Formats: sequence, C-alpha cells, structure tokens
Amino acid sequence: MVYRLAGSNVVKDLRKILGPDKVDDDELVVKLYSKDAVYFESNALAVVFPTSTEEVSEVVRYAYKHDLKIYPQGSASEIVGSSTPREDGIVISFDRMNRIKEVNIVDSYVVAEAGARMLDVNNLLAAKGYMFPVDPASIKAVTVGGAVNSGAGGMRGAKYGTMKDWVSGLTVVLPDEKGTILKLGGKTAKNREGYDLVRLIIGSEGTLAVVTEATLRIVPQPESLATVVGFFLTLEDLLNAVINIKESRINPFIMEFVDADTVRMTMKALGSKIKGEGHYLLVSVDTTPEATNRVLSQLEEIMRKNSVTAVYTARTMAEAEAEGFFDIRRNYYPASIRLAAEGLKSPNSRMYVYVEDISVPPTKTIEAVKRLRELEKKYGIPMTLGGHISDGNLHPILWFYDHEREKKEKFEDMILEIMEVAISLDGVMSSEHGIGMTKKEGLAKQLEAKGSLKALDLMKQIKRVFDPKGILNPGKVL
Amino acid sequence: MVYRLAGSNVVKDLRKILGPDKVDDDELVVKLYSKDAVYFESNALAVVFPTSTEEVSEVVRYAYKHDLKIYPQGSASEIVGSSTPREDGIVISFDRMNRIKEVNIVDSYVVAEAGARMLDVNNLLAAKGYMFPVDPASIKAVTVGGAVNSGAGGMRGAKYGTMKDWVSGLTVVLPDEKGTILKLGGKTAKNREGYDLVRLIIGSEGTLAVVTEATLRIVPQPESLATVVGFFLTLEDLLNAVINIKESRINPFIMEFVDADTVRMTMKALGSKIKGEGHYLLVSVDTTPEATNRVLSQLEEIMRKNSVTAVYTARTMAEAEAEGFFDIRRNYYPASIRLAAEGLKSPNSRMYVYVEDISVPPTKTIEAVKRLRELEKKYGIPMTLGGHISDGNLHPILWFYDHEREKKEKFEDMILEIMEVAISLDGVMSSEHGIGMTKKEGLAKQLEAKGSLKALDLMKQIKRVFDPKGILNPGKVL
Repeated sequence: MVYRLAGSNVVKDLRKILGPDKVDDDELVVKLYSKDAVYFESNALAVVFPTSTEEVSEVVRYAYKHDLKIYPQGSASEIVGSSTPREDGIVISFDRMNRIKEVNIVDSYVVAEAGARMLDVNNLLAAKGYMFPVDPASIKAVTVGGAVNSGAGGMRGAKYGTMKDWVSGLTVVLPDEKGTILKLGGKTAKNREGYDLVRLIIGSEGTLAVVTEATLRIVPQPESLATVVGFFLTLEDLLNAVINIKESRINPFIMEFVDADTVRMTMKALGSKIKGEGHYLLVSVDTTPEATNRVLSQLEEIMRKNSVTAVYTARTMAEAEAEGFFDIRRNYYPASIRLAAEGLKSPNSRMYVYVEDISVPPTKTIEAVKRLRELEKKYGIPMTLGGHISDGNLHPILWFYDHEREKKEKFEDMILEIMEVAISLDGVMSSEHGIGMTKKEGLAKQLEAKGSLKALDLMKQIKRVFDPKGILNPGKVL
Repeated sequence: MVYRLAGSNVVKDLRKILGPDKVDDDELVVKLYSKDAVYFESNALAVVFPTSTEEVSEVVRYAYKHDLKIYPQGSASEIVGSSTPREDGIVISFDRMNRIKEVNIVDSYVVAEAGARMLDVNNLLAAKGYMFPVDPASIKAVTVGGAVNSGAGGMRGAKYGTMKDWVSGLTVVLPDEKGTILKLGGKTAKNREGYDLVRLIIGSEGTLAVVTEATLRIVPQPESLATVVGFFLTLEDLLNAVINIKESRINPFIMEFVDADTVRMTMKALGSKIKGEGHYLLVSVDTTPEATNRVLSQLEEIMRKNSVTAVYTARTMAEAEAEGFFDIRRNYYPASIRLAAEGLKSPNSRMYVYVEDISVPPTKTIEAVKRLRELEKKYGIPMTLGGHISDGNLHPILWFYDHEREKKEKFEDMILEIMEVAISLDGVMSSEHGIGMTKKEGLAKQLEAKGSLKALDLMKQIKRVFDPKGILNPGKVL
C-alpha cells in the first residue's frame, strides 16, 4: 500500500536516513533550489545533500516506497525547465558530491562525481595540456551530472559534438524498490555492453535514472589555434565564406556567427574591442605552429573573396582573447539582458529573457534568419540572433516584460513558430538545451512532421521501464 | 489468432507482396545468405530483396501477423553470430537497397540506404577530400546498415571512436502490426529529440528495429599523415613509448600494436616489407605538411628513448602504404588463416578461426598480454595477438580444427576466460564486434562483476518495447 506522507514527516524520515545536516527544509534554501537559470521557479518539500551514491540510493528507495517525487539537481543552469521541482517532491542536490576521483592522461579519462564542476575538471586537465572537449556556455557553473543529464554542447561542438560523444561510463541509481545502483559502461573508450544505456541516459534530463558519477573521455588541447574574425554586409557573403571554408577541407574547431542587428545591439549595450559592420563570423582552426600563418592567410583570403568589410587575425587563442575576438559572440546574451533591463518601466516589474536553440543544415541559415526576423516583426518581441554556424545551431534570444500582457500571451506561440521554422528547413527544434518543460510541444511537432509520432510512444514506454512509478523528475521531456 | 504457415506458403505470400523477383527460396541462395564471415551457418525459409523502406515495412507487417522471424542482413561480415538466421524465418537482404542518396559536403552529411557499401561512400567522399571517419577492417564488404547495426569501429577509432559518434539519423521499420516506419534524428549534427533512439538502435545488432537508411556525419581527410613504425624487445618499452606519446599531448589518428610472437608468425606466413624483431608499434598522426618533419622526429625520439630496435618513418600515408608499414598489422588475421590452413590434416577437415575483441585501459596492456599468453598455453590453442593500443582494444585470434575434439570442447571456456581477463583489468569483453550469439555469457559476466545485472533486465524490457512478439533477429545480444 502506498500512503501519502505529510511534508514534515518526510523531512523527519530523511533526517533519520541521512543525518540531520544533509536535509534542509528552510524556506529560503528550498526556494533557492527550486529556481532555474532564467525562467521557472517553484517549491519543494526539502532539499537533500547526499555525500555518496549509497546515500542517494537510500533516498531513492525511501521515495519509491512513499511515492515521493525526486528532482536531481546540479547547478540548475539549464534553461528549458528540466531542473525545476514541484511542491510534492524533494530536490537531490549534488553540492556535496563534487569529488574528482581520478584523472588518467594515458588512459584518457576522468572519473568525477555528479556535483563536480566542469571548470574544476578542466583546470586539472589544463595543467597537463589536456581538456574535456565539451564546453557549455555555462561552464563556470555547470556540474558533471548536469552536463550529462542535459546532454550539453558548446562552441567546440563544431569539431567535438556533445556530451554523448564524450562519456564512457555512468554510475546511476534506478527509481525502483531497492534504489538499485548500476555501473554502466566503464573506463575504456569502446564498450559494447548490449544496448547502450549510457547514451540513453545522457540527455534524458534526469527522468530515467539518478546520475551520481561519470567517466569522461579527454583529449589533448590543440597545439595551436589560428583565429579569424570577419564582418560581412550580407548573409549571402558570410555563408559563401563558410561554404568555401568547408570545401577547402578546413575542419574548424570553433565557427560562430552573429547577425548584423545583434552585432549593432551588442556593441551598443556592452561595446567590443574589435569593430565592424554587418554580420560577424569567427573561425578558429586547430593547426600546428608551423602552419599557423598559412592557415590564417587561407581564411583571410576566403573572407576577402567574399567581400568581407573588416577582418582580424590572431595566431594564438591568448591573442584572440586579448584582442576581444569573442566579445560579440559571448556578449550577445548578456547584452540581451542589459537591453531588456533598460526597457524595464519600473524596478518592481520583471523581465523574461529566453534563449532558443534550433538547428538547420548550415546552408539553410540565410532562409532561417530571414524567417526568424519576420517572426520578430510579427510578434513585436525583440530578438538577438547568433550561434554555432558550423553545425547550423542558432540561439535566438527573446525578451519581454511582465506588464506586456499581450506579448506574454503570444510568447509561446512565437517559440512554437521558431521551432517550426527549423523543422520546416530540415532542422531540429532542440539542439543542445534539451526538452524540459518548454519544448515538449515542439518535440511532438518535430516527430509528427516526419510521420514518426510513434517514437514518442516508444519513449514513454522506455520511461516506464526505468521509472515504473513515475517519481523521477516527472513532467519533463515527455 | 496467430497461425503457423508452411514455408511454401510464406514464399508464395511474400512473392504476392513484393513481386516474384524479390523473393528467393532456392536452396543454394538461401544457404549463401545463412552464413556469417567465419563461424556460423544455418538456414532460412527464404531471402527477400526489398527495394524500398515501404517494401521492408510490408514484409515486416506480414511477418508480425504470422509470427515469422526476421533476420536483417547486410554483408554478414560480422563475426559474433549476430547476422545468422534460423530455419524458422526469412532473411531481409539489403543487396537491392544500396543507393547513396545524397552527399552534402557543406552540411557535412551523407544519406545512404542500408545496403550501400561503406567503400562506395568513402570513394565518393575521397573525390572531395572528405571521409566517413569509421573504417572497419571489413570496409570492402561492409554495408552502411551492417555498420550501424553492429556499431562498427576500426583503426581510426583511436581518434574518431565508433559508429555511435558518427550517425545523426536513421530510417527504421518497427516489428509491429503496421510495420511502422520511423525517421529518427536527421541531418543536423546536434539533435535533442527526447530520448536518443538513434544511438539506442546503433549497435543493437538488428534486434530492435530494421534499419533501412542512415545519415552519416563526415569530416575532411587529414591534411597530412606522419607515420612511424617501431619494434621493441619488451612490452614495457613499447608501452612506455605509448605513455610518452600521450603525455606529449600527441593525439594519434591511428595507434596499432602487434605482439612479438605474432610479428614472427605473420612475417613467416605472409612476409612483410619492413623487417624488425620484437613487438610492433605503428603510430600515425594527422598534422600539417609544415609540421610533418618535426612530428616524425618527435615520435622517433620517443621510440629511441624507449630502446626501439628498428624504426621506420613515412611523411605521407601513400609512402607508409608503399613501404608496407601496415603489412604486419593488416596481415595478422590472414596470417592466422594461412597458419591454420597449413595445419589442416585433410582437405575434408575444417578449421575454425575466431577473432576476439576485448579492451583494457591501455596501461593494463602488459598484464593483459601476459595473461592471454598463459591462457594460450593452458588450452594449447594457438593465438595471434594485436590491436588498437590507443584505446586498449586487443584482437586475439585463435584457431583449431574440426578433428581436435578436445580443443573444440574447451574453446568456449577459453573465450570466456579471455573475456574475464579483460573484465578483471577494468576492461570490457566486447569493444566493437558486439555480442551476437558468442558473447552473451560474457555480457552477463561483465555486468555481474559490476553488481549491475539489473541492466540486462532493463535491456530485455527495452527489447519488448520495440519488438513485443520477439520476431526480430531473436536469440541475439540478450
């Protein structure tokens, strides 16, 4: 028999299981752990801070027995609502499971607990000239477990892909009667362990199993990074430069794009060391010190052939950083927030800033940008626009204010139309941010457009296989 | 109600569905499609040759209705028994679904039907300076669908991993009432389409869905490949060279190893252009033309520091090929077959040649080789030994003859012990060949050793989600 417990009893029980210092039901603390990076806030019965996989297992076993909902949480820096709890459950925080347990350069892996910071992992690796290839924009905050659950990507995705390509092993706790601990995959690069449960769990946004530990694959840092920034008056010129680069068999390490309107808005809001008019294209190529000059000339020549109006080159990443090559790309999100804040009528009002995450095949970028700007006009909601052009991943950023009731009502329609633009151009409605709560309708649209809605049914059945009671991060993804 | 059909009725029905020229029940033809590359042979009711996904769907619908088993088949070059049919079912051959439908360099993908040859894909790409990164040893025979189902790897796995890292989209037919066609994933590099069914199906050995088409990600060919071969008297010296390479932040494109006994056997059986004594290490690094000499000196110096007895360098892949750098690595499988054939007592006898596929973390290679050679002695079954040392993937090759009843009986014990060596050294019992029929016990052992047998139960439930009647390639993987 399942019986419902009062919140106070849950807290008392959990304190008995974990010890009093690992369970917090202070209103402010719980509130703090019930917010995501930009959009959602909620509440929960309590936050627990386990210090081992075994403790997570005990909490999960208790939750299973009492039909209590569980919400695993890293830094909650995701932006689709996948980490937001509801009032009927507990947040499992990984703040106290943050050890980096092993760094092995020769065997090329790192073992870290779910709460370890990606930045700390990378700092340890950098000392040995190595890196973990996935670099989410939120790298300073993001945890290993969060990156696994959200299947994170980043700028280096141009060359290295996303989390799915770089995790070889997971320790997880299943939401079953025993809180079963599973070690899936392992320390070797290759592993044919039947069906690939590791990659099924990566990107499942904490809905299939509670990730407590991960084994990450690592690579040497590039020997040398040659970087060029160009500004183009038309998107056609910019895209032709991209096409020429790809046809020249250059495989960029990073290739980023920001559209002309956004360049202007970003420069106005936050400034930029490098100046230029038009659309911004940044290309970083990993090469050798000996070939750097040749690669830079090659890239510059391609840009000039395509009517670049201003072009900047840097022989090393340090030089590119010092010269502010990344300012425009990195600042267009903060610039959006600044611009949004400037528009606030009263300090008691509230603004909403939302980052979209669609992809199209890169050659369809022009059409995508055109249609996105049309949607901006149609809805009257301002937009900045850029992204990872190497893989066609665009991040339109939108904002509006609490008092703009009309915009607020139409906002979800606009998001849906943005996703439909991607879908209609052979693209996808979510590239690296996931589904969470905000993109569930988009996911269904995308599958429906391919006549493949049955896939959603398979996913729901898979969810039931892992989480028969539906207690793990319910209401997300599916 | 399910009712059983006689084989002749099945053939008649299928001819009605597909047309007479697409169904073959000629005894010789069926026999031909019921053999794998090395080990298993069986029989089937018929072979069908559909020419479209829709036709595959019709066949599957018919099979579902009549509880008929289905065995999808590419070139059947796998070596774990995953493509072998049973007598109660039909083989779906993809021989007539071999179109390469789209090659898009700028958007970096290829769309090909399941029966398209990987070699043809790569030839098309090579003309544009691009490649599909995964290069199974059976590249001349292997089909796109076969590589997807078997989750193939290859020599370039050192840098590029396996199929899971390089397939962005699949068209599949589900073994359900409708023969539902699903398009999963797509043409963009990144895609967060809920749970990752694409990667769940890759490597599932045709047990979850019938793959009819795939979208493959592509990359430019390396600008320049600098290759060095060295021979070492002790495994310790060879491994120290590997360690020094990794610590120098060199990320090899290919790094292969063959042990001293195997070098000797291979030279004796098939010869080799390059000569040397001891353990063979080949390292190929992708670099720039400008840096090639420096990289070669660096590698040579590392090898000399570790007491290399003979060292060869090549500035380009063409040179390395012309000089026979790969002979020993590529020939040790054919050499095993030659040596096995020489031992045949009578032309009517039969030999069995079996390729194992374990991985250990590279630093544990010495211990692994030591224990494998002990097993060779214990069982008296000869073994050649080498593999992809960059990711610790070893391919011991074993052989015995039909008349050697005692060896034949012990053979499966030996295989199990080999897998246990890997498992006990933090490694895995299957790296890139899969589970098929030969490694099911090994899979259970590996999960059991981690206290994670429950994973097998999850996999079985996932199988039921996709294939409720269990008609798709039954008896494989789980």
